[in-house]
Amino acid sequence: MSTMARGAVLRAFNEPLTLEAAPVPEPEPGALVASVDLGGVCGTDVHLFHGNLPIPTPVILGHEAVGRVEKLGPGVTADFNGEPLREGDAIAWASNIPCGRCYWCVVEKERTLCENRKVYGINQRFDEGPRLSGGWAEFIYLQPGSAVFKLPAGISPEQAIALGCAGPTAVHGVLEIVGIGVGETVVVQGSGPVGLAAAMYAQLAGAARTIIVGGPASRLDLARSIGVGDVHIDIFATPDPEERRRQVLAATPRGRGADVVLECAGVPSAVPEGFELVRRNGRYLVLGQYTDRGATPINPHVITRKQLKVYGSWAFAEAHYARYVDTLPQLAARFDLGRLVTRYPLEEANRALADMASGSVMKAVLAP
Amino acid sequence: MSTMARGAVLRAFNEPLTLEAAPVPEPEPGALVASVDLGGVCGTDVHLFHGNLPIPTPVILGHEAVGRVEKLGPGVTADFNGEPLREGDAIAWASNIPCGRCYWCVVEKERTLCENRKVYGINQRFDEGPRLSGGWAEFIYLQPGSAVFKLPAGISPEQAIALGCAGPTAVHGVLEIVGIGVGETVVVQGSGPVGLAAAMYAQLAGAARTIIVGGPASRLDLARSIGVGDVHIDIFATPDPEERRRQVLAATPRGRGADVVLECAGVPSAVPEGFELVRRNGRYLVLGQYTDRGATPINPHVITRKQLKVYGSWAFAEAHYARYVDTLPQLAARFDLGRLVTRYPLEEANRALADMASGSVMKAVLAP
Amino acid sequence: MSTMARGAVLRAFNEPLTLEAAPVPEPEPGALVASVDLGGVCGTDVHLFHGNLPIPTPVILGHEAVGRVEKLGPGVTADFNGEPLREGDAIAWASNIPCGRCYWCVVEKERTLCENRKVYGINQRFDEGPRLSGGWAEFIYLQPGSAVFKLPAGISPEQAIALGCAGPTAVHGVLEIVGIGVGETVVVQGSGPVGLAAAMYAQLAGAARTIIVGGPASRLDLARSIGVGDVHIDIFATPDPEERRRQVLAATPRGRGADVVLECAGVPSAVPEGFELVRRNGRYLVLGQYTDRGATPINPHVITRKQLKVYGSWAFAEAHYARYVDTLPQLAARFDLGRLVTRYPLEEANRALADMASGSVMKAVLAP
Amino acid sequence: MSTMARGAVLRAFNEPLTLEAAPVPEPEPGALVASVDLGGVCGTDVHLFHGNLPIPTPVILGHEAVGRVEKLGPGVTADFNGEPLREGDAIAWASNIPCGRCYWCVVEKERTLCENRKVYGINQRFDEGPRLSGGWAEFIYLQPGSAVFKLPAGISPEQAIALGCAGPTAVHGVLEIVGIGVGETVVVQGSGPVGLAAAMYAQLAGAARTIIVGGPASRLDLARSIGVGDVHIDIFATPDPEERRRQVLAATPRGRGADVVLECAGVPSAVPEGFELVRRNGRYLVLGQYTDRGATPINPHVITRKQLKVYGSWAFAEAHYARYVDTLPQLAARFDLGRLVTRYPLEEANRALADMASGSVMKAVLAP
Repeated sequence: MSTMARGAVLRAFNEPLTLEAAPVPEPEPGALVASVDLGGVCGTDVHLFHGNLPIPTPVILGHEAVGRVEKLGPGVTADFNGEPLREGDAIAWASNIPCGRCYWCVVEKERTLCENRKVYGINQRFDEGPRLSGGWAEFIYLQPGSAVFKLPAGISPEQAIALGCAGPTAVHGVLEIVGIGVGETVVVQGSGPVGLAAAMYAQLAGAARTIIVGGPASRLDLARSIGVGDVHIDIFATPDPEERRRQVLAATPRGRGADVVLECAGVPSAVPEGFELVRRNGRYLVLGQYTDRGATPINPHVITRKQLKVYGSWAFAEAHYARYVDTLPQLAARFDLGRLVTRYPLEEANRALADMASGSVMKAVLAP
Repeated sequence: MSTMARGAVLRAFNEPLTLEAAPVPEPEPGALVASVDLGGVCGTDVHLFHGNLPIPTPVILGHEAVGRVEKLGPGVTADFNGEPLREGDAIAWASNIPCGRCYWCVVEKERTLCENRKVYGINQRFDEGPRLSGGWAEFIYLQPGSAVFKLPAGISPEQAIALGCAGPTAVHGVLEIVGIGVGETVVVQGSGPVGLAAAMYAQLAGAARTIIVGGPASRLDLARSIGVGDVHIDIFATPDPEERRRQVLAATPRGRGADVVLECAGVPSAVPEGFELVRRNGRYLVLGQYTDRGATPINPHVITRKQLKVYGSWAFAEAHYARYVDTLPQLAARFDLGRLVTRYPLEEANRALADMASGSVMKAVLAP
Repeated sequence: MSTMARGAVLRAFNEPLTLEAAPVPEPEPGALVASVDLGGVCGTDVHLFHGNLPIPTPVILGHEAVGRVEKLGPGVTADFNGEPLREGDAIAWASNIPCGRCYWCVVEKERTLCENRKVYGINQRFDEGPRLSGGWAEFIYLQPGSAVFKLPAGISPEQAIALGCAGPTAVHGVLEIVGIGVGETVVVQGSGPVGLAAAMYAQLAGAARTIIVGGPASRLDLARSIGVGDVHIDIFATPDPEERRRQVLAATPRGRGADVVLECAGVPSAVPEGFELVRRNGRYLVLGQYTDRGATPINPHVITRKQLKVYGSWAFAEAHYARYVDTLPQLAARFDLGRLVTRYPLEEANRALADMASGSVMKAVLAP
Repeated sequence: MSTMARGAVLRAFNEPLTLEAAPVPEPEPGALVASVDLGGVCGTDVHLFHGNLPIPTPVILGHEAVGRVEKLGPGVTADFNGEPLREGDAIAWASNIPCGRCYWCVVEKERTLCENRKVYGINQRFDEGPRLSGGWAEFIYLQPGSAVFKLPAGISPEQAIALGCAGPTAVHGVLEIVGIGVGETVVVQGSGPVGLAAAMYAQLAGAARTIIVGGPASRLDLARSIGVGDVHIDIFATPDPEERRRQVLAATPRGRGADVVLECAGVPSAVPEGFELVRRNGRYLVLGQYTDRGATPINPHVITRKQLKVYGSWAFAEAHYARYVDTLPQLAARFDLGRLVTRYPLEEANRALADMASGSVMKAVLAP
């Protein structure tokens, strides 16, 4: 094991990340050290970079990553699923460690809401503790309590990282909270990684028709080319929401509207627009409003009259990550996941971040 | 049976109702004729009077009523529950008759959404068919397919009418759609009939604390005096939403917010205010937005971050009315329902409507 | 339209069906007459033939059928979904007509439990009313209230009949009552039409692994050849339940047992055997016990200790048939449905019944 | 704090418990030491005494207890709910500590199924670790991770112990798993502590009628005297199950059977008897079959034909205990809980156990 490892450190908001080195610690009991194969760049990283969320600095960013076991701490012999774990095994891990003891973990059983949770690449400082606690680095220290998973047979690191945290986020929102039934018509608002992951899971769950409303055209083309979505509506080509509504309704059975609409756009105005796309007694998932972008006019009468069910879904926890890893073979069998990825060396973390911000790539991935 | 019967007829929107007579028909097979004991005046009647909803005229208003069997049509021997039905029996009936054959009735199983449904006192004309099809009349003709219920033993007509259609509306929204668990903390926004009915059912369902946010003081006093609600916050005395929020949160366990918030206010701005009163992972029912009063600024990020479940509930159907009648003995045992009622003779239908519009009475009831 | 039509009539239990003719009626308002293309033979028909269920005679059997519109009654212009209906259109129809007004239809919203429902081919007599009320006939009279569906584009009558009533039965039990999640491991007990339909829907719903425990080998081979099921365990080759249990558990993740077990075997002892195949906190569907075959030793401690959810599902209603028709394109795209069918002329109804009884064919179908 | 404390130790199955002393440890960080006010004797303790469950010996029995904070370990400043905790405070605690990290805790979110959980009074040895780990002792050592709760204002230790672990067990099964709706008719099979707790929660949840089928008469009289149950059927006075069925059905609306049946009897034959008491589409909870008492003949056709939902519920975890404590004021306001309790000094633990075994008392409680 190398004695020193480099990582891309955010020292101050809006200032370029710098590559810095720290010693690779010996793992304590229950912990392990992993070498990082690939670290994903997420839309949230762009917000973190700009200081839009309250995080400590300095910090090595990177809450999405896959790698290999470098060294197992005392007592670590198996992964979360009980599969034997050995040095060199390809692994992925949930980015967060809930406390498992608070009201949210124990009574509400919503570990995503745990107020004490540790999140790699977000709230673990670079200047204390094991330091190497973000995925944009050569090595990462996985603390006791981390949910670590061996990659399923036949799944490459690139396939595992392709959806990034959008994968488990969609598991939580789409499969667990809103649910999709066989034969349903699903609208997805948004065609970034969350939108694509949501559409993929809707399709795996047996949706009869998946209608993606997003853009730009390059993203819709990519989605179409790998079989994600049945109908694709480009918001740039069709800027009028009323016209989009006509097109979406025309693609739903009897023009009734979709059984389910999955908001993965992150723009507040997507929500009232989406309420017009769902049929009466239908379901609406607010999945994309992770960042606070303010209020928008919404008519609550629509919720009553159409008798909607509107669900929020916040992030994900180990359970969703476990299900994401479990279903990777199903995703990979149906969709060419690797097509989503654009690779960058660790040295080009800032460029990767910029490309993600501009939407010029679907999924930037750092290869340390 | 009288050969002629009088009813309060709406001939033109915003023009006083007039008392007019029509012949009492002989009931066809499956139908029955009832004399009306009491006909409730609902907030929706005020909207109908003003032409805010698309209804035909002339029409005898009155979608809430209780009465007695005057004459049974051929083949009618029992009520909806299979209880033997005889002339003179005190009865109530669901105001609407869904078709039972359409997509909404059969596939969605939401008979409230049936597009073909007939509604007494709303969409049954006075100038055709059996004519006597509203509750503000001496007699009403109950068509085949009507869900008719004998009043439970010990329940007076006054008790049965006291909540009016707010009773089955709350059954639908509060019991069936959102559900209340034993020990939960419930906030009710609104203190009109829907708010009180919602609070009563929450209490029957085992809520530990019910906090009513409404007004004016006279309505809250009435609620308090009959044991509806544990905490009462007067929106006129506390006009600042932020201060109301402080008071509500202080009344919830650990200041976390309510497990459930039931919107029964009908004012769009109640919804974003209510989102601030519910805890993370909590439930919010949009029950009161029956009339379209336009959009209001809402921040959808709150739905994601707090991981809310937001439900609409539209009106009610026979199932909810059946459950309402079934649970009347439980309501009556716990709350002095008669206290809600103010009686008017049929001749004073216009005054009753005006008093309901001004909120000077909780529940105006016509006694033909 | 022919003036007379022949049907296969059951006059007395256990006596061969006879071909008899009856006049084809003119359709009344709301009704239609259809020519029958294909009429399925169901395991239940074998029970009906033996008088194991209380049905009237004489009766034309056949509760599964597809055909073409011969003549539309006055007022019939569209199918259940609102699609325009014309003479010559290929159609299918739900075999039963619930009353839509009773406690079970209205309050419980379980039209399968309606006590007044009419069922083609089962409780509609040949010696009264329209007489032609079973599917094993050249024509069938579809009464007002029937849920009739145009076949989806690209679906042949053979594809539509291949699963027979097992299709909507599985929709009800597997999709609606027990539900299948993406990535789940599902065990299906039984490899007749119900077992295969259950497995197909589990696969459409995203099951990661479907394990069929059934027989004889020919049925498992057929299932395997069209991609139904991932693992197939032959109960004749492996007669020891304990050995079957070992094989099933070995095919489940971490040997934990299946997330869901779908009983489609119809043998009482399948239930306690199945309880050993499901994991703790798992779900068990009792779908196949349509006929009363008596009690079997079951240890209820297993239900408590494993914290099982055990669901019964009875037959199907229009909603399930509608969803079955809607999802036929998805079934047909994934599975070669036609492979299940063996055709017989109407004259050989008795042979078809015998072959179905012996299990020598998967699905006997009469082609009148 | 005393330096030594006595406890009732089980050294060998079926041999009288002996009073033995052990040193009271200093609490480590996260732990606390409590003096025990009252320790409940549970039916399961009788089974433990007889060696019917695989537990280690020697062990201080007592998984039900309430007491007072004697000494707080470093870092312990608040209870599970965040309420400040001080020496002398009256407290109760969940008897078990799940690991919070395994598949059952994290993915299934069923901490009752955790395979690593520690249970006071059951699997914590007397000859190692803190030794004082059972409730039948003067002091108990509450390990880090214990869910400790201050008693709600106005709740006495006697009220808190009166239902023992039957309280949270009923929360889990009755409120969380099966659920009770306002106006429902509920049958409870069994009139021991679990049956009474189940009936109480059903009543709090708004059941319109609660029918208890149990015995002996003294237990039913006690239930009746404190308002638990509306109808009481004595299985000793009415030994014929068919006659009991007639009586139960006669007490249900329209003779249809109960909406929900809660099995709290622990006798396998109660389950098939109970299936006859529930209406079609009803729910059945198998709550009482905690001990394996073998198989009984059950007809699975009943589950299909009646379309039942049958749920098992295993034990309880912290969430249920938290809700039990939260709802104690509601239970105590409605039912005179203290009437259930019979007190014994710690020295008479063996007599308390014998009385519980014979059913001569409802709830034996040791007062160390």
